Amino acid sequence: MCELLGMECNVPTDIVFSFSGLAARGGGRGPHADGWGLALYEGRSVRTFLEPAAASNSSLAAYLRSNPIKTLLAIAHVRQRTRGPVSLANTHPFVRELWGRHFTFAHNGTVRGIKQRLEPGRFRPIGTTDSEYAFCALMNRLERAFPKGYPEPQALARAVARAGREIGDRGTFNFLLADGSQLFARCATKLCYIIRKAPFAKATLADDDLEVDFSTVTTPRDRVAVIATAPLTRDEDWTLGVPGQMWVFRRGRLAETLPS
Amino acid sequence: MCELLGMECNVPTDIVFSFSGLAARGGGRGPHADGWGLALYEGRSVRTFLEPAAASNSSLAAYLRSNPIKTLLAIAHVRQRTRGPVSLANTHPFVRELWGRHFTFAHNGTVRGIKQRLEPGRFRPIGTTDSEYAFCALMNRLERAFPKGYPEPQALARAVARAGREIGDRGTFNFLLADGSQLFARCATKLCYIIRKAPFAKATLADDDLEVDFSTVTTPRDRVAVIATAPLTRDEDWTLGVPGQMWVFRRGRLAETLPS
Repeated sequence: MCELLGMECNVPTDIVFSFSGLAARGGGRGPHADGWGLALYEGRSVRTFLEPAAASNSSLAAYLRSNPIKTLLAIAHVRQRTRGPVSLANTHPFVRELWGRHFTFAHNGTVRGIKQRLEPGRFRPIGTTDSEYAFCALMNRLERAFPKGYPEPQALARAVARAGREIGDRGTFNFLLADGSQLFARCATKLCYIIRKAPFAKATLADDDLEVDFSTVTTPRDRVAVIATAPLTRDEDWTLGVPGQMWVFRRGRLAETLPS
Repeated sequence: MCELLGMECNVPTDIVFSFSGLAARGGGRGPHADGWGLALYEGRSVRTFLEPAAASNSSLAAYLRSNPIKTLLAIAHVRQRTRGPVSLANTHPFVRELWGRHFTFAHNGTVRGIKQRLEPGRFRPIGTTDSEYAFCALMNRLERAFPKGYPEPQALARAVARAGREIGDRGTFNFLLADGSQLFARCATKLCYIIRKAPFAKATLADDDLEVDFSTVTTPRDRVAVIATAPLTRDEDWTLGVPGQMWVFRRGRLAETLPS
């Protein structure tokens, strides 16, 4: 299985602390040694760092921890291969352009039979993972649902939740999807989140000895939503997801919870 | 104006030497301080490193020079802003998925009126540069020309050459376009290339003191095509492009020269 990490904020924030916790699981403390990726938005555009190798001893991952890039919206992933060989094409997060913005996707679980079920559409997989096939199926549905362009955020959220339920009906479809303005987080089996806001406190990584005092690096109006497959810290209260629900985060808040 | 760099090889090769020459022009020796990008293929998939800042003093560019990634196909770009602000969305190379493979594009020049002329199509710009609009116009034409999927390489080359001529008829449209298997290089005003092959010799960067003896890092069957807006070395014979021609490189060879 793979590990997911998302961050969605109202002020530019670096993801180093949470990414360090995730990277520790990428071959170090965890079995997720088959690749990692980090996608960081700037407006509607995303830049992605990908490596088809373990994150825990990656010099690129170390570089990114030493040279943090602040962002309002990020998705990260560490992979333990279940379907598809270890390669760049099979490394999450996956990115596609739709309606003049980048959509970014990472998946935890296995969606059975998706390769046979993928209908012809504009989005096609480059690699061989069930995850990228499922992403393409999702994107093809969104494009067909809104032929005129980027819809109202709420309408898009309902469409993502519906597509998530339909595509995920034969498998395990925990995913994070970002469009530059919002972050969708679907829980099929496991997902959790925390909103960090004033008064900020200390937090300690569950998989590492790293500790940070957020009160020293924030302002009172900062709001940072962090979403992960399992709690990343051992001294904060994470909200556990309910299978069949999808959260929508906007500007550092849980904006909607939809059936999915 | 911007500077272009492409590399297309028959064996995995690192682009560090040529990229160092290009990066020196990105804010150091040249005026191209408004962003840089490097796209490295692995099969049909590409990973891209982008930074909306000068390459010459970039720690990420320095990291990539110290930790070279070998590839068969690469495109790099340093930008001097002419149209569109400095931002991630406006940083070349641009990437889109078509037919289950990544297409990567970088441009030198200005294509006038392209924003008004861009027809509706599946590919839409995320940023505001004439370059990305021209790339979307090119990709929309390719998709319409081959609705069944990735065509024969020669047929694709003819379509790229034709689209390049039509889109570039009102402006300066020097570009590099890669599809994972081949590299297209269109000369509107300036472009040059060299094929490095046995017997390999020494080369010295034109903009830097860096020297490399390729005979120590190659085998006799290696072939490496390097394409740039201006010769990167001062002791090699670069072939200058003819305006209105497009080169096609495959497996380290100049495979075709087409009118464009």
